[in-house]
Amino acid sequence: MVGHWIDGAPRASASGRTAPVFDPATGRRRAEVALADQADVDAAIASAQRGFREWGGWSIAKRQRVLFAFRELLNARTRELAEIISGEHGKVVSDALGEVMRGLEVVELACGFPQLVKGGFSENASTDIDVYTLRQPLGVVGIISPFNFPAMVPLWFFPVALAAGNAVILKPSEKDPSAALWLARLWSEAGLPDGAFTVLQGDKQAVDGLLHSPAVQAISFVGSTPIAQYIYEEASRHGKRVQALGGAKNHMLVLPDADLDLVADQAVNAGYGAAGERCMAVSVVLAVGEVADPLRAKIVERIDRLRVGPGTDAVEPDMGPLISAAHRDKVAGYVGVAEQDGADIVVDGRGFTVDGHEDGFWFGPTLIDGIPTDSRAYQEEIFGPVLSIVRVATFQEGLDLINSGRFGNGTAIFTNDGGAARRFQSEVQVGMIGINVPIPVPVAYHSFGGWKASLFGDAKAYGVHGFDFFTREKAVTARWVDPATRGRSARGGIDLGFPQND
Amino acid sequence: MVGHWIDGAPRASASGRTAPVFDPATGRRRAEVALADQADVDAAIASAQRGFREWGGWSIAKRQRVLFAFRELLNARTRELAEIISGEHGKVVSDALGEVMRGLEVVELACGFPQLVKGGFSENASTDIDVYTLRQPLGVVGIISPFNFPAMVPLWFFPVALAAGNAVILKPSEKDPSAALWLARLWSEAGLPDGAFTVLQGDKQAVDGLLHSPAVQAISFVGSTPIAQYIYEEASRHGKRVQALGGAKNHMLVLPDADLDLVADQAVNAGYGAAGERCMAVSVVLAVGEVADPLRAKIVERIDRLRVGPGTDAVEPDMGPLISAAHRDKVAGYVGVAEQDGADIVVDGRGFTVDGHEDGFWFGPTLIDGIPTDSRAYQEEIFGPVLSIVRVATFQEGLDLINSGRFGNGTAIFTNDGGAARRFQSEVQVGMIGINVPIPVPVAYHSFGGWKASLFGDAKAYGVHGFDFFTREKAVTARWVDPATRGRSARGGIDLGFPQND
Amino acid sequence: MVGHWIDGAPRASASGRTAPVFDPATGRRRAEVALADQADVDAAIASAQRGFREWGGWSIAKRQRVLFAFRELLNARTRELAEIISGEHGKVVSDALGEVMRGLEVVELACGFPQLVKGGFSENASTDIDVYTLRQPLGVVGIISPFNFPAMVPLWFFPVALAAGNAVILKPSEKDPSAALWLARLWSEAGLPDGAFTVLQGDKQAVDGLLHSPAVQAISFVGSTPIAQYIYEEASRHGKRVQALGGAKNHMLVLPDADLDLVADQAVNAGYGAAGERCMAVSVVLAVGEVADPLRAKIVERIDRLRVGPGTDAVEPDMGPLISAAHRDKVAGYVGVAEQDGADIVVDGRGFTVDGHEDGFWFGPTLIDGIPTDSRAYQEEIFGPVLSIVRVATFQEGLDLINSGRFGNGTAIFTNDGGAARRFQSEVQVGMIGINVPIPVPVAYHSFGGWKASLFGDAKAYGVHGFDFFTREKAVTARWVDPATRGRSARGGIDLGFPQND
Amino acid sequence: MVGHWIDGAPRASASGRTAPVFDPATGRRRAEVALADQADVDAAIASAQRGFREWGGWSIAKRQRVLFAFRELLNARTRELAEIISGEHGKVVSDALGEVMRGLEVVELACGFPQLVKGGFSENASTDIDVYTLRQPLGVVGIISPFNFPAMVPLWFFPVALAAGNAVILKPSEKDPSAALWLARLWSEAGLPDGAFTVLQGDKQAVDGLLHSPAVQAISFVGSTPIAQYIYEEASRHGKRVQALGGAKNHMLVLPDADLDLVADQAVNAGYGAAGERCMAVSVVLAVGEVADPLRAKIVERIDRLRVGPGTDAVEPDMGPLISAAHRDKVAGYVGVAEQDGADIVVDGRGFTVDGHEDGFWFGPTLIDGIPTDSRAYQEEIFGPVLSIVRVATFQEGLDLINSGRFGNGTAIFTNDGGAARRFQSEVQVGMIGINVPIPVPVAYHSFGGWKASLFGDAKAYGVHGFDFFTREKAVTARWVDPATRGRSARGGIDLGFPQND
Repeated sequence: MVGHWIDGAPRASASGRTAPVFDPATGRRRAEVALADQADVDAAIASAQRGFREWGGWSIAKRQRVLFAFRELLNARTRELAEIISGEHGKVVSDALGEVMRGLEVVELACGFPQLVKGGFSENASTDIDVYTLRQPLGVVGIISPFNFPAMVPLWFFPVALAAGNAVILKPSEKDPSAALWLARLWSEAGLPDGAFTVLQGDKQAVDGLLHSPAVQAISFVGSTPIAQYIYEEASRHGKRVQALGGAKNHMLVLPDADLDLVADQAVNAGYGAAGERCMAVSVVLAVGEVADPLRAKIVERIDRLRVGPGTDAVEPDMGPLISAAHRDKVAGYVGVAEQDGADIVVDGRGFTVDGHEDGFWFGPTLIDGIPTDSRAYQEEIFGPVLSIVRVATFQEGLDLINSGRFGNGTAIFTNDGGAARRFQSEVQVGMIGINVPIPVPVAYHSFGGWKASLFGDAKAYGVHGFDFFTREKAVTARWVDPATRGRSARGGIDLGFPQND
Repeated sequence: MVGHWIDGAPRASASGRTAPVFDPATGRRRAEVALADQADVDAAIASAQRGFREWGGWSIAKRQRVLFAFRELLNARTRELAEIISGEHGKVVSDALGEVMRGLEVVELACGFPQLVKGGFSENASTDIDVYTLRQPLGVVGIISPFNFPAMVPLWFFPVALAAGNAVILKPSEKDPSAALWLARLWSEAGLPDGAFTVLQGDKQAVDGLLHSPAVQAISFVGSTPIAQYIYEEASRHGKRVQALGGAKNHMLVLPDADLDLVADQAVNAGYGAAGERCMAVSVVLAVGEVADPLRAKIVERIDRLRVGPGTDAVEPDMGPLISAAHRDKVAGYVGVAEQDGADIVVDGRGFTVDGHEDGFWFGPTLIDGIPTDSRAYQEEIFGPVLSIVRVATFQEGLDLINSGRFGNGTAIFTNDGGAARRFQSEVQVGMIGINVPIPVPVAYHSFGGWKASLFGDAKAYGVHGFDFFTREKAVTARWVDPATRGRSARGGIDLGFPQND
Repeated sequence: MVGHWIDGAPRASASGRTAPVFDPATGRRRAEVALADQADVDAAIASAQRGFREWGGWSIAKRQRVLFAFRELLNARTRELAEIISGEHGKVVSDALGEVMRGLEVVELACGFPQLVKGGFSENASTDIDVYTLRQPLGVVGIISPFNFPAMVPLWFFPVALAAGNAVILKPSEKDPSAALWLARLWSEAGLPDGAFTVLQGDKQAVDGLLHSPAVQAISFVGSTPIAQYIYEEASRHGKRVQALGGAKNHMLVLPDADLDLVADQAVNAGYGAAGERCMAVSVVLAVGEVADPLRAKIVERIDRLRVGPGTDAVEPDMGPLISAAHRDKVAGYVGVAEQDGADIVVDGRGFTVDGHEDGFWFGPTLIDGIPTDSRAYQEEIFGPVLSIVRVATFQEGLDLINSGRFGNGTAIFTNDGGAARRFQSEVQVGMIGINVPIPVPVAYHSFGGWKASLFGDAKAYGVHGFDFFTREKAVTARWVDPATRGRSARGGIDLGFPQND
Repeated sequence: MVGHWIDGAPRASASGRTAPVFDPATGRRRAEVALADQADVDAAIASAQRGFREWGGWSIAKRQRVLFAFRELLNARTRELAEIISGEHGKVVSDALGEVMRGLEVVELACGFPQLVKGGFSENASTDIDVYTLRQPLGVVGIISPFNFPAMVPLWFFPVALAAGNAVILKPSEKDPSAALWLARLWSEAGLPDGAFTVLQGDKQAVDGLLHSPAVQAISFVGSTPIAQYIYEEASRHGKRVQALGGAKNHMLVLPDADLDLVADQAVNAGYGAAGERCMAVSVVLAVGEVADPLRAKIVERIDRLRVGPGTDAVEPDMGPLISAAHRDKVAGYVGVAEQDGADIVVDGRGFTVDGHEDGFWFGPTLIDGIPTDSRAYQEEIFGPVLSIVRVATFQEGLDLINSGRFGNGTAIFTNDGGAARRFQSEVQVGMIGINVPIPVPVAYHSFGGWKASLFGDAKAYGVHGFDFFTREKAVTARWVDPATRGRSARGGIDLGFPQND
């Protein structure tokens, strides 16, 4: 039984409710995960409040020691975590290792938090008056994370939240719940006081328990857009600050001057990596002018060489299975929609299986050409290994198409023309932009976040903005009485006017 | 008829709905103000969208010129604006001038916006890859402001919003709507393109029109806590970023070492200034130990000398009327509640009138002692010239009492003990703190905002955080092909793993 | 007699020494300028010290008011200043207006100084210990500025220095000393206290007086490299902080994909503007591959259309005279050297005169081709309207040539290839870089400064770094005794070990 | 033989010149250290240049990995380094451990360098023009460090210098040269490429070799004021940027309200720790009013309990020997001067020895009262375990006395009065200030540095300013041609005026 982590230790669920955890490569049930009820939520929050009273009072120096210790432990054991991820999620181990490394970068950012939680100090702002700002932690904060990055997405938030002095309750996806527990244990080893990091396993009951509790000060969420919107509204309605990251439909725009071999490589890598279960996956190649046909040929050629199989195989394949049977069927449904809407299914991954693993949740790399832009299969997020080629006549047409969609997560342009890239980055309504980089996840010291329906709220993940989200300011205006003039009340007197600075 | 300001010009309302605007010192109707219907809202938003397309594309250099021109105009005509405020709001002219000056400071902050909207640039973040961040305006943003500071509160937001390249729609209070129009005209004179600054007069219909429009990207609100909460929920539900500042109940904690003459001056200034209609007014004096009796005597003595009268009188009084008859009655009701709950009404302002202005909305300075802390009159915001003295035995008891309330806007401590002040600023759950300063409104280059029920959302007003609220980031990850190696595709190849930095 | 400005008023010199000030377009003496002796220096410094004691104690709010007032005055009277510059320097009025506008931008930066002089505040850095930083002015600082930008160069420094609370002594060039006096008077009108801004006219005696005085805390210098080096050494030897900006030899690198009409325009503008008397003037066009011949033709064609004449003429010419007869002869000497070294003098400006102004210090636009890179005329700064074309086979050869020189002030590349531009900006050893921009003087909120022999010291002008130069930090480590525990000395005890943070 | 570290490996000296290294507790020679001649200097610089070409080109991601690895190694082996320090310097091991830990904090700061070397990015600063800033390493930089902190002082500089991409040559004190070698080996283990960190052993020849080499871009020095001044002048004369930290004479000002037991503890800890061989040691207690006599009694009482002995003893003493016989005699000389000038030598440490270690360089804790402020023993830095009590009547008299000295390194005030502390921090001419903290060495994320003769140059050590010192900026002004308008040269045309922003 995969349980909670409360008070610095594993904890079974009080509820008796559970859900199965599968090995997606075999379709077999690996374990049961606890699903919290309100009693579990209450226990988690009560523990986190105690954890905050302790941890939030630790000095910067003491907190920094724990952060560096955690970084050291995580860095030493990345492979261990990657294998846990691969086993429950299905992605290949090297890919899981990739997500761990990108998460580790945020821990490294958080190690430098003293610089990032500084307030400002203004001497003699007004005559004899100093003004300065303190940045304090919020208290107990909740993180609700998706199945596709069971380590990296929580790591976008909790190192920052903890560094800033908050206590964290992490509600991971019930589909791959073990990575969170592994991380919790690591924090204990690193010296974090009990209660400062809590894992609460569960489904909507756990989520709503966090959303509705007045003790939880903030919610960080990553998932699909409809759920992100629900989280944003519901948490806002309960007076919390919220950052809710939603879905995506990421386009790469290929200009005629681009190196098509390079582009084809990148399209395949970014389209089929992690079986497309990435919010930064490329799902549409926008080919400008004459580019489409030769590029399509190069992509097909590369797809032919891709190997699909269990992520933990000794000879590592390129791509693993999808997360669940239901999700596989949903992806297949989208391909069906495209077909019905008149698209050309150039490479069809439906019905794909791997010998000896026939019950795994497989879906082969799929390439679609000629999809109408009013097809649901073009407009919605598929979240599977499905890449579409769309033809546009000009740069401008491509840009307009990208801006016409509801999502604004990631995008990329392939060209070496500085002027084209500059217009693209200025005008595209997307939060993360690659120039000849297909999956432009920003480094940890910049911030992650999309525009439009890809992010609700005003707070991006990690970077400077992560620290803004997880701290609350106090502005202090101080006028000390100079002992030399005390009692003479030079500044006294009745003046009911609004106070001026002079 | 006080109408809207749309497309860079005054505009009558399409709706025909109006509300009266009073002179609070006489109780007489001065004018009618238009109340927008949906057609007005639509016109305002359509114009603002055009305004944004123009203004949002202006370079930093061109925008900066307009900001400086506006600052120059406003600085030259502060008194003109102060008189408009005094006439509709009732506060004395010098006090109105005070709010204008504090608003002007935010314009001066905004003049320096180029420094505050810089993104970051990281060369060679990963091998041959640069990462940088652009900060762009949001688009059309709405400001909904209260009656008590018809100039200053809008000025907390719109200079920042405009400097960052947004188009602003300001919905002022219908009780004192003229200051907004005066400011709009000033922007036109300063060279702001039409549509970039819009005034929409109205009531809940106008508010809801802004909250529900998908074209409005953000809402900045200041008002009472129940409305702030409504705004926060409703705007969030429509996917906007929101900052909603609510009510307050500000305590000043007086330690035994304080200079009581100075404290009594400040209590009177901060309790009765603007007739207590300030979210940063002091409403409770927390007297520690033996301080209460001598301090009470000193406050009473000062109240006796206060002159109340029309704010525009040639010989300026200390304090003017309340904003409306209804509000006067509400304030009186709170004093009644205090009385019923057993408090001692030391000075009673109920029934106060000014000779020759008997129909004005008058309320005299009121001092209450011995109010039980479970009385509604202690716990709720009164927003009138009513000051209560509460006695506590120790610093700790005072601190705990402040922290037990639902508001967290402002507070102050009076002492010269560095240790007491340090514990106070660390532990008090309040966003703006004065040390021997009773109304600690932060200077423009720090930020304004309370904690708890005094601010919904994560975004304070003005300062660095104002620019965070009114901009949206794009992170760009760029890898140019070196012409010397083009075609050799050194970085190509199939690798579906999550992209690493190296 | 053009005298000093001391104690907020004009002051004649005690020394009796003077130098002539010419009108370069006529060659006639316009005025005499005082040359300070040590008594003048002493008076200036004594006054500045008094000025600092007053001004350095003013609050941020009060200082900011003066800054904005100065900006307003300067903005209103730019033309007046431009005409003074044109009359003494010779540049055309619109060009002089240009330098004033760029200087005004630094005033606008300085208006936002409260944000730029903030220190940091770290609560609970170590247990119960806060650490914060104050940024204070240095005291009296000296600015020594060159003839070529009598307004802009001083304006790079003094708005920043004054905003930060310093008192400034400006030693302008004795060739065009009047702009400094005009600016001094403007500061008085803006409300700056007497002594905070001083003008000391003079030559090396004045300079050495400033360098040797222990009361002068810092020196900002712009001029030729040999003098910059002298200033840097001499001021350093007297314990001051120094920034000394020197000469330049700016290349523009033109790649084959560039638009040659655009490039030719820019080469002419940047090569001949202000008769080449700009440290950011382009003096070498590096033509890659086949570019040279067509580009040369286009440049010649444009030179033919240039009009040279008195800068104050009603119909404004493109270019005025040089600053002095001696300088004209020096420029002519360099052209002679080039000729002797085998270069082709395509257009020869030697001997050029303007009808009716035969005694003016004229030098016509000069174009040189085929200059050997070991010619002194290639390697040294000419500071006149002399443009050389140098041919290189490749981008790399051009880059290496730029990096082989001793200067590193400005440079530009003309191309639309993002990869070429990225390598250029990464590898060129130059401080200010244009991409399709020939004179890349950074905007005021970035910083100005070259590399190598173009800047001695570590401090660039204006921007964030300007405020670093003109402020000095204090770091405060504070541990207050909590009154609740006083006398119990919980933190006492003997421990001679180095203090740790915990 | 303690040799150099060049090209990532130990290297014997070419010179044959050596100096002895002593064990100060026994007075016995422990080893010989190489003294570089010019050939060694040249080898070191050549290797460092190669090291820079490699390391300076590494991406941020790769550099960050090395920094974290170094931090991990150092953190694991602090005791090993502390014992090396204690053996050569004489300080007790726990004190040596203290300096290592404070040095480690700067490594931790440097691990967060990506945030600290960001440039700024301004989109559309002028129409269609972006401006951004790159921060690049300087190249080869030299660090010249003193005997008293053989690990901490180098660690103030080299983690920052290396993180920023520079190659470092460290010239440690020849009195305790082994810590530097140990650190060099650790960098190799951490993966730093050969040549990026070099140790050059030596005396003035080595120093001058670094100062005179054009390849060395910057010098960071800590030592006595006369040498600091020499370094500053000489390095400046060779065109380098320099930070040269000199001597100190740190006062603690004790107000009548202070807790005298606490003060006495702190005076003893800060006066005698490391035998007073710290630039932040307290050497003068300024007792205000009646404080002096009781405080003197409490200090004497504590001195009586101090144990002096070999720093490596199993039962650790409080204080070890001085660094050398010569230094011991110099300290004794100062006590003699005080005596002659009429001071009362309350506790006399001259002639002190430790049984069984009679040849050690011992000096007992010394307390002086009544020293005239014109005595050399008051005015100069003694750098030994000698504490003086000076009596002043008022706060102001104490403040004036501190400000009358030539040094401005550190100081402290002991009081709980917020007003006194505020005036002290505002007006004292000292760079590092403690409020109830006797040795206010700023935490790593603020900066270290004194004022006046305690620091030459404008650059403090570590913190944000450390990164300013060790990077050089490039400002890029970029205008790409939009492909849609190419060839139409919209921005072309002849205009020789100074370029404007619009």
